[in-house]
Amino acid sequence: MTAYTATVVVRLKHGVLDPEAETTQRALERLGFELDDLRSADRFEIDLDAPDAGTAEEEAAEMAERLLANPTIHDYDVTVAERATPEA
Amino acid sequence: MTAYTATVVVRLKHGVLDPEAETTQRALERLGFELDDLRSADRFEIDLDAPDAGTAEEEAAEMAERLLANPTIHDYDVTVAERATPEA
Repeated sequence: MTAYTATVVVRLKHGVLDPEAETTQRALERLGFELDDLRSADRFEIDLDAPDAGTAEEEAAEMAERLLANPTIHDYDVTVAERATPEA
Repeated sequence: MTAYTATVVVRLKHGVLDPEAETTQRALERLGFELDDLRSADRFEIDLDAPDAGTAEEEAAEMAERLLANPTIHDYDVTVAERATPEA
């Protein structure tokens, strides 16, 4: 088994209203920043052990499907990287 | 001016308790997943125009300092990419 970190980014589907992001954008504009758009997303970094990167990615995608994302309103993507484990 | 998307990831500093992440990890374990750790972070994708990538990155870092992150408890990192703008 190899140690991996899977990063799952969960974002609202295009067209789903995001009042939190709108509020954040307006607050930045009130501070004097100029921006065209702001989108917010949740990011989960999951440390897990798996026989290979493909299996780690499948496992993380299943976590997204079953708990982290709501398929009605969310899209998600998964990236996987090997994780350095501290030696004893 | 060039169109950029700056991505700001805001995460809790090491050692700051994250009850939401702990709850999410336990819920995944109750579903039968095995994981070593789970960390959550906020991700902001900011569309802005700037003369060059360095300026876009500075601008986004200032947004993080002033609003998106709380320096007492958060670390953040900024990445910048050119953004394709729809042609008229």
